[in-house]
Amino acid sequence: MIVVMKTDTPNLEVQRIIEELQSESITPEKIVGKHKVIIGLVGDTATLNPEHLQQLSPFIEKVMRVDKPFKRASLEFRHGEPTEVSVTTPNGVVVFGQNHPLVTIAGPCSVENEAMIVETAQLVKAAGAQFLRGGAYKPRTSPYSFQGHGETALELLAAAREATGLGIITEVMDTADLEKVASVADIIQIGARNMQNFSLLKKVGNQDKPVFLKRGMASTIEDWLMAAEYIMAAGNPNVILCERGIRTFDRKYTRNTLDLAAIPVLRTLTHLPIAIDPSHGTGKSEYVPTMAKAAIAAGADSLMIEVHPNPAKALSDGPQSLNPRQYKVLMQEIAVIEKVFETDDQKLSLPTGTSVSTAQALPKAQLTM
Amino acid sequence: MIVVMKTDTPNLEVQRIIEELQSESITPEKIVGKHKVIIGLVGDTATLNPEHLQQLSPFIEKVMRVDKPFKRASLEFRHGEPTEVSVTTPNGVVVFGQNHPLVTIAGPCSVENEAMIVETAQLVKAAGAQFLRGGAYKPRTSPYSFQGHGETALELLAAAREATGLGIITEVMDTADLEKVASVADIIQIGARNMQNFSLLKKVGNQDKPVFLKRGMASTIEDWLMAAEYIMAAGNPNVILCERGIRTFDRKYTRNTLDLAAIPVLRTLTHLPIAIDPSHGTGKSEYVPTMAKAAIAAGADSLMIEVHPNPAKALSDGPQSLNPRQYKVLMQEIAVIEKVFETDDQKLSLPTGTSVSTAQALPKAQLTM
Amino acid sequence: MIVVMKTDTPNLEVQRIIEELQSESITPEKIVGKHKVIIGLVGDTATLNPEHLQQLSPFIEKVMRVDKPFKRASLEFRHGEPTEVSVTTPNGVVVFGQNHPLVTIAGPCSVENEAMIVETAQLVKAAGAQFLRGGAYKPRTSPYSFQGHGETALELLAAAREATGLGIITEVMDTADLEKVASVADIIQIGARNMQNFSLLKKVGNQDKPVFLKRGMASTIEDWLMAAEYIMAAGNPNVILCERGIRTFDRKYTRNTLDLAAIPVLRTLTHLPIAIDPSHGTGKSEYVPTMAKAAIAAGADSLMIEVHPNPAKALSDGPQSLNPRQYKVLMQEIAVIEKVFETDDQKLSLPTGTSVSTAQALPKAQLTM
Amino acid sequence: MIVVMKTDTPNLEVQRIIEELQSESITPEKIVGKHKVIIGLVGDTATLNPEHLQQLSPFIEKVMRVDKPFKRASLEFRHGEPTEVSVTTPNGVVVFGQNHPLVTIAGPCSVENEAMIVETAQLVKAAGAQFLRGGAYKPRTSPYSFQGHGETALELLAAAREATGLGIITEVMDTADLEKVASVADIIQIGARNMQNFSLLKKVGNQDKPVFLKRGMASTIEDWLMAAEYIMAAGNPNVILCERGIRTFDRKYTRNTLDLAAIPVLRTLTHLPIAIDPSHGTGKSEYVPTMAKAAIAAGADSLMIEVHPNPAKALSDGPQSLNPRQYKVLMQEIAVIEKVFETDDQKLSLPTGTSVSTAQALPKAQLTM
Repeated sequence: MIVVMKTDTPNLEVQRIIEELQSESITPEKIVGKHKVIIGLVGDTATLNPEHLQQLSPFIEKVMRVDKPFKRASLEFRHGEPTEVSVTTPNGVVVFGQNHPLVTIAGPCSVENEAMIVETAQLVKAAGAQFLRGGAYKPRTSPYSFQGHGETALELLAAAREATGLGIITEVMDTADLEKVASVADIIQIGARNMQNFSLLKKVGNQDKPVFLKRGMASTIEDWLMAAEYIMAAGNPNVILCERGIRTFDRKYTRNTLDLAAIPVLRTLTHLPIAIDPSHGTGKSEYVPTMAKAAIAAGADSLMIEVHPNPAKALSDGPQSLNPRQYKVLMQEIAVIEKVFETDDQKLSLPTGTSVSTAQALPKAQLTM
Repeated sequence: MIVVMKTDTPNLEVQRIIEELQSESITPEKIVGKHKVIIGLVGDTATLNPEHLQQLSPFIEKVMRVDKPFKRASLEFRHGEPTEVSVTTPNGVVVFGQNHPLVTIAGPCSVENEAMIVETAQLVKAAGAQFLRGGAYKPRTSPYSFQGHGETALELLAAAREATGLGIITEVMDTADLEKVASVADIIQIGARNMQNFSLLKKVGNQDKPVFLKRGMASTIEDWLMAAEYIMAAGNPNVILCERGIRTFDRKYTRNTLDLAAIPVLRTLTHLPIAIDPSHGTGKSEYVPTMAKAAIAAGADSLMIEVHPNPAKALSDGPQSLNPRQYKVLMQEIAVIEKVFETDDQKLSLPTGTSVSTAQALPKAQLTM
Repeated sequence: MIVVMKTDTPNLEVQRIIEELQSESITPEKIVGKHKVIIGLVGDTATLNPEHLQQLSPFIEKVMRVDKPFKRASLEFRHGEPTEVSVTTPNGVVVFGQNHPLVTIAGPCSVENEAMIVETAQLVKAAGAQFLRGGAYKPRTSPYSFQGHGETALELLAAAREATGLGIITEVMDTADLEKVASVADIIQIGARNMQNFSLLKKVGNQDKPVFLKRGMASTIEDWLMAAEYIMAAGNPNVILCERGIRTFDRKYTRNTLDLAAIPVLRTLTHLPIAIDPSHGTGKSEYVPTMAKAAIAAGADSLMIEVHPNPAKALSDGPQSLNPRQYKVLMQEIAVIEKVFETDDQKLSLPTGTSVSTAQALPKAQLTM
Repeated sequence: MIVVMKTDTPNLEVQRIIEELQSESITPEKIVGKHKVIIGLVGDTATLNPEHLQQLSPFIEKVMRVDKPFKRASLEFRHGEPTEVSVTTPNGVVVFGQNHPLVTIAGPCSVENEAMIVETAQLVKAAGAQFLRGGAYKPRTSPYSFQGHGETALELLAAAREATGLGIITEVMDTADLEKVASVADIIQIGARNMQNFSLLKKVGNQDKPVFLKRGMASTIEDWLMAAEYIMAAGNPNVILCERGIRTFDRKYTRNTLDLAAIPVLRTLTHLPIAIDPSHGTGKSEYVPTMAKAAIAAGADSLMIEVHPNPAKALSDGPQSLNPRQYKVLMQEIAVIEKVFETDDQKLSLPTGTSVSTAQALPKAQLTM
C-alpha cells in the first residue's frame, strides 16, 4: 500500500501519519521526492482499507493498493496451478479446467414441460453436450414475463438427467431455494444479476456443489473475482467463471458486448476455469456460432449455449437460442477447431502438409509468451 | 407493437404472419411501403413479447414496441397524479412526493455501536433530518470487509429511533431477513446491487412498509421502473426511487456518475417520488454538498446523505461521509435553496427587489414547459 | 512515479533496474516489502512515460504515476488562482471565471439565413444572453444531413454581431478554416468530436482568440484537461471547458448523460472556467431548463443553450432547442437562482426572513469544505 | 418511418400532421390502435429527419426509423456482394475482402529512424506480413509525448517500402497533410480519435487511395458505418473498417474492450472488409496473440498488429507491441489456424482422421445459419 502526500504537506503531519500507521504488522517507509513525500507500507497490508487510510489526514492525496484484493481466487494462491472442477454426472466425471478438453453445456433458457426438456436433452446429448442447462427460476426484467416453473421444473430437470445421463446446471435466485436446487443440480448457477447478491454467494459457498458464476453486466474483472472470493472464503473452492457479455454504450445490434479478452486477462490473475456464454453475450442466435468459435480460439474451458427445440415458441430468450440442427452443425465445427487449439502434450494432428513444428505453441491456454 | 418485414418478403409470408397474429384481442394492420411492408398490431399488446414475435419468421426484420413495458409505475397509471408516500415516524408523518417539501435522510453507512448510532441520530436530527439511515446488513465488494452487525444493529437502530423520534431506513439483502428488518425499519431499502434481485423485490412487494429502491449501477431508467413494477405488481404501491450514480468509463475522480437528468426524465414517465444519494453518487465527501444542491435544483423530492461522527474511523464508506458539522452547514444552505425551488401555491419569498412575478415558474417540479 | 516489482523478483534484476533508472535528474529509492519490492522515482519524473518504464523488465508488475499528467491546466500552475477569460464584445468586456457572474450563451445549432440569425440574436439578447452561438461548419453524423453554410454563415454571424453587439462563438472543424473563423468569432469552439483532433488543438493554441473546449463524449476528465493542455502548451492560456454530456449505456430518454459532478471535480484540478451545455447534454428541450438550473447550483461559470426561433423547422438539432419564449422564462428563473448562488463578497440578498447568516457559505464555487 | 402519437391525441391534430406530411414522395398511412394512433410514412423517407418530424407537434410521442441511415455502406447497396479492396504494392496486388485470405499488417506505432523502420519492415515481411504500418503523425493524449517525425517519417516509410516491397499504411491527422501522406501511403489510415473528423473524412473520400477507418472508442456500429458513408459519398468506395477496442467501465487490465462481435454484426449490415487491431484493442502485448487468433475465428479479413524491434525502447505504445520473435511465432500459429477457417471453395485440408465432410461449413465468414 502506498500513501501519496499532497505537495507541501508539513513535515510534522507526515511524521504523525507514519506514527499512526506504525504497528506490529506494518512498517511505514518514507520516500522524499522532489515535490511530494510518499509513504510505503510494508507488512501485512491485506487487512488495511485504502479508503480508511485516506481519511487519516486531509494532506493525503491518494492511497494506492499494490497487492490485489483477492486471495483464494488469485493465481498465486495455487502457485499458478489451474483449478480442476470435477463433476460427477451419470455419464461419468467431467472436468472443467485449463488443461482439459472443452466442456459443452446446452439447453433452453427455461424448462417449459417434460417432453420439451427431455427432448432437448436428448438432442444436445446427441450433438455432444455434457451438461444440460435449463432455468427453473428465471430472472426476468418484467414481472409480467414468464418467471419459470420453479420447483416443478426442478423435477423435470431430474427426469431429463435420468433419461440422458447429462449433468444438470440450473440457476438459484433466492437463498430459500438453495437446498431444493442443490438436490437436483450438479452445478449451481449464479446469474449475472445476482453476482453481487452477497447473501446468496455466502450460501452457495457453504455447500458442496460447484458454482457457475456469471459475470455481472457492469462488473469489472476485479468485482467478479471478489464475488468468487466470497464463495471460496465460505468454503467452496469449485467456482467456474462465466463471461456472458457486459453492458456498453452500443446495444443496437447486440444485447451485450462479449468481452472475450477477459479470458487471457483472467489467465494472468486466477486459477479458476473460464466459460463463455455467447448466447447471452450477443443476444442473437445468428451471432452465436461465430462467437462460440472465437471463444475457443481465445482459450475458453467451457461453452454454454442456449438451444431450444423451437426458438420461435420459446417462453423466454427465443431470439438467442439455436435450434437443435444449428447446434449440431456448430458442434461439428467446434470438434474441428478444438483439435487445433487442444492442449494435451501429444503432438496435435495438424492439417496435413503443415510444417509447423511448434505444435506446443498452440495451447488452448493463450499465454504463448 | 410494430412488425417490420425485410425488403422483398414474399406476399404469402406476410399473409401467413398476419393470420398467425390475428386473435380476439389483436388486430394486425398491414402498411405497404416503397421498400418494406410493416404490420401494426392493434389491441391488447401488453401481453405480447417482441422477442417472440421476432421468431415468427426469418423475414421479420425487427419488432418495435410502441407502448412502455411498465404500467403501475407509469405516469398514465395515476393519470399524471404524483404518488405521495406517507411514512409515520415517532416525530410525525413525513410525506415523500413531488408536491411536498424535501425529505432529508442522513446517517452512517453502517451501524457500528449504540453510542455511535444514537449520537449520529441526535446530530442529524438537530441539523434537520427526518430519517436516520444506517446499515445493519452491508453489501461489500470484499468478503474480508466489515459485513454489518446484522440483527444486533437492527436493535441499535430501534434504540436510535426511540431516542430521537427519527424514522429508520435500512437495507435488506436477503429474503430470509425481511421480517426482522421490517419490524424495525419505517422504510426498507433495496440496494443498487439487489435492484434486480427479483425474489427480494417480490417479497418486499408483498408487505406493507414503503420501499426505497436504489437504481442499479448499470440499470437503464426502464430497468429501474420495471424493478419498481415488480414491487407494485406484488401489491405495494409505496416505492421511492433513488438515483445513486451509474457506472461509466470515467471512474478516476468519482466512484460513479450521478445522473441528475434522471429526475426530469422520470417526471415524464412515472408518478413515484424521487430521491438522490450524492454520497454514493460521487464517492467523495468533498463533492457531496455541491451535488446535493444541484439535486434540489433538479427537483429531487428527497436527499439521502451519509453522515458519520468521525469519517476517518468509519468501518465502511468513510471517504464519502460528511462529518456532523459539514452536514449542518449543508442543511443550512439547503434551507435557503429549497425556498427558491419550493412548490407550494403561495407566493415564494423571493430575494428582495426581485421583480420576477412568475413565482409559479419556479416549481420544484422541473416541467416548466 | 512508483515501480512495483513482481513477487520473487531476483535481487539482481531489481538492482539492474535501479541502475538503469538512475540519472542526473532521477533518483530511484528502493522499499523492500513483505512480498514485494517497490522502487520510488524521485526527481523530474514529468518526462518519464510509465508505459516505457513498464517495458524495462518483465519483472515489473506495474508503474504508477503519482503526479498528474497536466501542468498548465492544473490548479497548482496558478497556485489555486482561477483563470479569468476576458472577452471584448461590442457590448463590453465579458469575463468567464469562477468569481464572476454567470455568462450566458444562446443561439441556434446552425446559422440558417440572415433574418433567422439576426432575429435569434435579438431575442436572446433581449432575454439577457451575452454571446450568440451559431454553427457555420456543422459536424453531422450523416453526410446527408445539412452540413452548415460555411463561409457564408460566418458573414451572417458578423452581421448579427453588428446588429446586436453580442459576442460570437462558433465552431471550427478544420485547420484550413481557422483563419476565417477567427476573423469573425470572439470565441472559437472545438466540438466534442474534435476534442482529440490534436492538429486542430495546436492550431487554436497558436492564435489569440479564447477557445471553448467541449468534452469528448467518451473523454475522461483527464483526457479533457490534456486536450486543454495542448492548447495552452501551444501558447493560448484562454481555455473555457464545456461539459456537454458523456456517452453511457442508457441512451433511451436522453442523448447523453450530463456529468454535472465534473464541475466540483474540475474545481479541485484546474483553474479554468467551466461551462455547461444542457442542450446537447440531454438532447431534449423539455429537460433543458431543469438541467440548466442544476448546473448553476453545481457552480457553472457559463451556460450554453440552444435557442431556435422555430425549433420544429430547425435544419439541425431541433428537438433540443428552446424557443425564444421558453428561453426568456428560463432566463428569468436563472436570474432568481443565480442571486442565491452568487459569489461576490457583498452580502447576498437572501430571501426575506431567512436568518441564515452564512451567506458566504453559498458560493457559486462549491468547495464549501 | 413511423410516427407514434400520444394517447388521446385529438383527431384533428392527427389529421393536420398527416396533411403536413403528405407530399409527392411521401404517403402517410394511419393505423388506429386501442390506445394510440400511429402514422406510417411510405415513400422516399431517406431524406426525412426523425428529429424534425418529432417537432411537428407536441402530440408526437416518438418517431422511429425503419430504414437504416447508411446507403453506400449497406449490404443492400451491393446486393450482398462483399467489396474487394485491391491494393497494388511493390510485391504485388493484395486484396482485402470476405472471400480472400487474411491480410496481415504489422509494424511499429511510430517511425523512429531509418534503421529501425527498415529493419522492422524486413522482419515482419520475413514473418509473412504484407503491409507495414508506422506512424509519421501521431495522435498522443499528451502534448509532451512524442508527436511523430511527420514529413521526415514519410520519407523513411518510402525507404522501407522500397527496401522490402511491403505496402505502406500510415495515419493522416490533418487535411493539410493529406497530399503528402497520400504520396507515400498505399492505404491511408483514419485514427479512432478522428473517426468523426468529418472534414478529414470528406477529404480522404475525395482522393483515390483506400482508407483504413478505425472505429472511434465511443462510436456505435452505426456511427462507424456513417463515417464510412462520408468517405464513400465523397467518391471513394475503398474503405476497410478496423475495430480497435471500445471504451467501457472496465479499464484496469486492458486499455479498451475489443468488440469481436462487431465482425458478425457488420457482416449482416455491410459489404466492406473488416480488420481487427488486437494491439490497441487490449493495450498489452501479452494478450495480443490470443485475441489475434480469436479475431481470425470470428472471421476477420485482416489483422493489424504492432511490432517493434525493441518494445522497451519504443517512443510510443511499447507495452502493446510484440517483438519480432513473438510476431514470428504468432504468424506461424495463424498460418495453422487460418487453414481451418479458410474460405476458398476447395476442400480444406482438415486434420487427418477428421471425418467432418462439411468443410464448407467452416467459412471465414461466420454466417453459418
